[in-house]
Amino acid sequence: MKSLLIQVINPNTSLAMTETIGMAARAVAAPGTEIMAVSPSQGVPSIEGHFDEAIAAVGVLEQIKQGKAQGVDGHIIACFGDPGLLAAREVASKPVIGIAEAAMHMATLVATRFSIVTTLPRTVVIARHLLQRYGFEHHCAALHAIDLPVLALEQDGDIAQKKVREYCIQSLHHDGIGAIVLGCGGMADLAQDLTHELAIPVIDGVSAAVKLIESLSALGLTTSKHGDLDYPTAKPLSGIFSTLR
Amino acid sequence: MKSLLIQVINPNTSLAMTETIGMAARAVAAPGTEIMAVSPSQGVPSIEGHFDEAIAAVGVLEQIKQGKAQGVDGHIIACFGDPGLLAAREVASKPVIGIAEAAMHMATLVATRFSIVTTLPRTVVIARHLLQRYGFEHHCAALHAIDLPVLALEQDGDIAQKKVREYCIQSLHHDGIGAIVLGCGGMADLAQDLTHELAIPVIDGVSAAVKLIESLSALGLTTSKHGDLDYPTAKPLSGIFSTLR
Amino acid sequence: MKSLLIQVINPNTSLAMTETIGMAARAVAAPGTEIMAVSPSQGVPSIEGHFDEAIAAVGVLEQIKQGKAQGVDGHIIACFGDPGLLAAREVASKPVIGIAEAAMHMATLVATRFSIVTTLPRTVVIARHLLQRYGFEHHCAALHAIDLPVLALEQDGDIAQKKVREYCIQSLHHDGIGAIVLGCGGMADLAQDLTHELAIPVIDGVSAAVKLIESLSALGLTTSKHGDLDYPTAKPLSGIFSTLR
Amino acid sequence: MKSLLIQVINPNTSLAMTETIGMAARAVAAPGTEIMAVSPSQGVPSIEGHFDEAIAAVGVLEQIKQGKAQGVDGHIIACFGDPGLLAAREVASKPVIGIAEAAMHMATLVATRFSIVTTLPRTVVIARHLLQRYGFEHHCAALHAIDLPVLALEQDGDIAQKKVREYCIQSLHHDGIGAIVLGCGGMADLAQDLTHELAIPVIDGVSAAVKLIESLSALGLTTSKHGDLDYPTAKPLSGIFSTLR
Amino acid sequence: MKSLLIQVINPNTSLAMTETIGMAARAVAAPGTEIMAVSPSQGVPSIEGHFDEAIAAVGVLEQIKQGKAQGVDGHIIACFGDPGLLAAREVASKPVIGIAEAAMHMATLVATRFSIVTTLPRTVVIARHLLQRYGFEHHCAALHAIDLPVLALEQDGDIAQKKVREYCIQSLHHDGIGAIVLGCGGMADLAQDLTHELAIPVIDGVSAAVKLIESLSALGLTTSKHGDLDYPTAKPLSGIFSTLR
Amino acid sequence: MKSLLIQVINPNTSLAMTETIGMAARAVAAPGTEIMAVSPSQGVPSIEGHFDEAIAAVGVLEQIKQGKAQGVDGHIIACFGDPGLLAAREVASKPVIGIAEAAMHMATLVATRFSIVTTLPRTVVIARHLLQRYGFEHHCAALHAIDLPVLALEQDGDIAQKKVREYCIQSLHHDGIGAIVLGCGGMADLAQDLTHELAIPVIDGVSAAVKLIESLSALGLTTSKHGDLDYPTAKPLSGIFSTLR
Repeated sequence: MKSLLIQVINPNTSLAMTETIGMAARAVAAPGTEIMAVSPSQGVPSIEGHFDEAIAAVGVLEQIKQGKAQGVDGHIIACFGDPGLLAAREVASKPVIGIAEAAMHMATLVATRFSIVTTLPRTVVIARHLLQRYGFEHHCAALHAIDLPVLALEQDGDIAQKKVREYCIQSLHHDGIGAIVLGCGGMADLAQDLTHELAIPVIDGVSAAVKLIESLSALGLTTSKHGDLDYPTAKPLSGIFSTLR
Repeated sequence: MKSLLIQVINPNTSLAMTETIGMAARAVAAPGTEIMAVSPSQGVPSIEGHFDEAIAAVGVLEQIKQGKAQGVDGHIIACFGDPGLLAAREVASKPVIGIAEAAMHMATLVATRFSIVTTLPRTVVIARHLLQRYGFEHHCAALHAIDLPVLALEQDGDIAQKKVREYCIQSLHHDGIGAIVLGCGGMADLAQDLTHELAIPVIDGVSAAVKLIESLSALGLTTSKHGDLDYPTAKPLSGIFSTLR
Repeated sequence: MKSLLIQVINPNTSLAMTETIGMAARAVAAPGTEIMAVSPSQGVPSIEGHFDEAIAAVGVLEQIKQGKAQGVDGHIIACFGDPGLLAAREVASKPVIGIAEAAMHMATLVATRFSIVTTLPRTVVIARHLLQRYGFEHHCAALHAIDLPVLALEQDGDIAQKKVREYCIQSLHHDGIGAIVLGCGGMADLAQDLTHELAIPVIDGVSAAVKLIESLSALGLTTSKHGDLDYPTAKPLSGIFSTLR
Repeated sequence: MKSLLIQVINPNTSLAMTETIGMAARAVAAPGTEIMAVSPSQGVPSIEGHFDEAIAAVGVLEQIKQGKAQGVDGHIIACFGDPGLLAAREVASKPVIGIAEAAMHMATLVATRFSIVTTLPRTVVIARHLLQRYGFEHHCAALHAIDLPVLALEQDGDIAQKKVREYCIQSLHHDGIGAIVLGCGGMADLAQDLTHELAIPVIDGVSAAVKLIESLSALGLTTSKHGDLDYPTAKPLSGIFSTLR
Repeated sequence: MKSLLIQVINPNTSLAMTETIGMAARAVAAPGTEIMAVSPSQGVPSIEGHFDEAIAAVGVLEQIKQGKAQGVDGHIIACFGDPGLLAAREVASKPVIGIAEAAMHMATLVATRFSIVTTLPRTVVIARHLLQRYGFEHHCAALHAIDLPVLALEQDGDIAQKKVREYCIQSLHHDGIGAIVLGCGGMADLAQDLTHELAIPVIDGVSAAVKLIESLSALGLTTSKHGDLDYPTAKPLSGIFSTLR
Repeated sequence: MKSLLIQVINPNTSLAMTETIGMAARAVAAPGTEIMAVSPSQGVPSIEGHFDEAIAAVGVLEQIKQGKAQGVDGHIIACFGDPGLLAAREVASKPVIGIAEAAMHMATLVATRFSIVTTLPRTVVIARHLLQRYGFEHHCAALHAIDLPVLALEQDGDIAQKKVREYCIQSLHHDGIGAIVLGCGGMADLAQDLTHELAIPVIDGVSAAVKLIESLSALGLTTSKHGDLDYPTAKPLSGIFSTLR
């Protein structure tokens, strides 16, 4: 097995979260896999809506370009809205995986239906749109928001974690599901403990994405450059975007 | 009827296209409506994929903010991928309409099924995703790409217009449809002539969006600030994005 | 802007409701737009099921024919089931808009999800079928029936209005929505007040339809006569229907 | 087995077609089943669009009322658009079956996918809407129109029948289907011969509907009067409709 | 009406249930129809999950083969998961009907929406998958499990029947439905009484399937042998399966 | 990374194919992963329809039980119909992956749309049903059958491989896709060469499934035993099935 360098991009600028995410990635990386956890040089400290996502997407593209220059073997977009995913796939020559898609795909492999536990209610619509795009609407029984901002997972960790746990337990008893997807990169460190305590798969997308990158890499598969994910049409970018290609 | 100021945002930086779009908007604006056609200070000269869209979305947000400061009564995102639409709705207090949604909505009001004629094949996936998101998959019979870049509509106008016309005629005869949606802001000036020549509704989203903004305004309706389109959560934006809020 | 004559058809025979509807239409009509509120010469006093709708559809066609003879510029079918909509589009040469579709389209432009508040529980299935036909199933979070007949909105206005308001408030708090669609032409006069009080878009289809007719008209778009909405095949109608063509 | 009286309603006023339909019904009726083939006293000579359907629906309701007074055990709506089906179910106390639904249901029981062969291209949209309503979109591979009016089946029988046969054979070879649904009551007499010649199920809805009425009757099942198919709310009908309840 | 021999296959090995099912079938069979109730020589005593279904499917095929040798005119698979349905259709030359599909089809003919009352919660996913496959997802309002095993219907009949009744009543009041589908062959004897008591159609699939076989037979329709339901490709079966073809 | 023992089950009894499949699995297995390629002791030599699948499913369960006894860390069902997948998940305590789902999931990670190239036309319906179940209908542009039986891939390798290649090339040019899924375990050895020659991802499910099992294992995730994939209800199995639990 060849050694791999995987770039894990935290699309927000909160370094504590970059670290949480990086640790979650390293915890499952194969022996030869090196994790490089990065975040954009500028942008939003947390991503809790479409506005935040639009900004974060540019940060993701900035990092994809850098990762490509550094010769990484794959890129992970570690925010549950998968911001900039298809744009990143156009830029990259190596596989790009979003943590929402990673977690959702894995969930359908171990249960017939799953629920999602996320942060603020306003992010629910983002997850709902992704379920539709990815084809998993029928596999998702319910979406729950703990009603705490993303950064509460770092700053008021205990309270936030308690709330995540409570919602997972309620979902387990009432939703008729077999697995739970954690709907925020900042929850990455909770998955393993909850999986053991609740005795059902509680799935974090960061670690799931690492394995999917490793998998695609081992299979010799990468983002198709035939068709609509081909490299962006060559054209001059102006202003603050001029360095993006 | 109160007078309105509508900001029409061309999300790319090609001023010729901004002008085409502005003219199409003015051609249908109500007597009291003033059209302000703008484009981002920086970005991509044309939008032909997800990468271009991600960049354009930030330009759209920059312009939404400026329009808001200028007290406009509504915003139009004049690129057929509706880049940054939901993000713009979060930022804006007034209505925001994308030209793809505008054209698609109008098409379903005058025909049971429509086809789309767009530019490059790689943009078809964007239109397909919008059809799914907006709920119009069953109303769209086919998507056709003339296989010319967006700017050909400005630079090689004759050739491009001929191709658009050819595809519309083919669609009319073979798709079993009653209307055609033009899938690019740069085609805005073709709609009226084609509507007359082909004797079916050939719909341009720019003009459609103007009427939808005017309509919402007259109805006293604006983007809901209850729920997931509420103003973005207050948080410090860093670097090049610091001026966006 | 050319002046327009819009025919607003109340498909039931209750003149008080025709008046309510006509007033709602006039309240939003553009300066040059004249509203002609009519109702069938015969039929049902209110529409609360499929049987009522089938009868009302013929009344709608009778009125469409008359409006056409009078040279109106557009027709509105002002019952939330949009009875006879596609049949009316076949007959008409000008645009025809149903108030259910009008309200639903507008709702998707200002919120990611909406709820519907309607009259009797038995009409819920009609709204559900329209959501499916128009493509808005994913945009509708819930359907609520106040469990009062349509005419209660005229006769016991206070009680009915109180109930509508109560259901709107409940929907606002529990459905995770950003807008509410009022599911009956007889509720047309409530939209504006509820929009202000609840601070979310509460949408009436009558006024929405007026603006859509004005919009299509300004865009030079009308019901496609190519394909399945072409004028009805010429054939002799017998009996009471002989005057319909 | 108790004896049954089934009312087969040809929703158009062409008596030759009423006869064709009646014969098709009688050909499969159980020993104790009597077929009463009727058509409205007034309406359209053939049904080839939404306008025709709206008129025919009232004729159907007129006949349902009469059949009910005569104590029939079930009603069949023998036009492929199933005009007035849900309205008829509200009025009737006994089962009501449309021939489109009957044929489509039967087709899914003998093949994984079927195609539809109908008359004029403009009726295709009606069949498409029914497929969506009934849930059979995924079971229908293609819709073909022979491009002859409904009455050609009676008047130019040979030409029309030859065309139906040709389209069935093409469908058999190219659509990847296992069964064909004949999309017009006037094709009822062709099903059996085509079934034998082509060696696949070619399904006529008239005969299928007879067996479904007999089946529901034997099962002691009838249209639910709990909920939205309950009898129409009591209210005065005016004018030409006053005799409908 | 020719006389028919219908083979009703109870896919589990519980003879008491075979008898219940056989009686339900005979109760509705037409005068000339003979019911032959059988069960596999080996397999599972009850079917409550995918594992049980996989085993039962082979038992079904064993019985289909025997029924075919005996010249039966149709086969019924009398377990609500319709185990082995498409496989059985490949083997059979005569119609094959599953009781889940039979009940669901009938339900859509008498109500706009129905609920399902089944046995163990773990079987709900099977019904959900069938609703999707058959196209009835939109017609089903809710799925309820009485949380008793299948055989409780035979062994603790009173308790189980009481629970079925309770769930039906709750469904009637809360689901907004017009009919109920009983989700287990072992509930076949409850349908008629519940239909009378609750005054809505409560539908048993066994009896429904009998009438559908009789219907297809009278229509001269049988499983299509053109395409994917053709007889299995000839090939040697080994071991315990060698007698299956 | 702990060492893993993965059981790859060829559900048919053709040992040559078991070997092909085993080799494909080993080619991508991680250093510590051991592949155990097995096939049922009895069953069908190839799987080309629902009948074959029903028999193969029991063989799969037999092997799952054996693999479980041997302490394997995961099971792969190496037939493109994923026969017995949910039943196997009930029995197993470790992850179970079907090769159709594995290939489809991977395809959606590297392209926006894919096509499937399979063997006999009659197997297309099986793939279509899986696309619906898994949620990937919108991601699949077309399904192609080379019209050769499964075993032709072993016996007339050159002809079959040539045909697969031809269909892939046609799909690449005409389907508007970015990736191709090979629809048969017997094509496993073709994926890598075609990926290189055609310069798009051509995906084999056997190798994809190996990586998914390794991934789930590394993530500490396994089939949920909460809910409908719990171990089969304990009950006596009779006859040839008595050894299955």
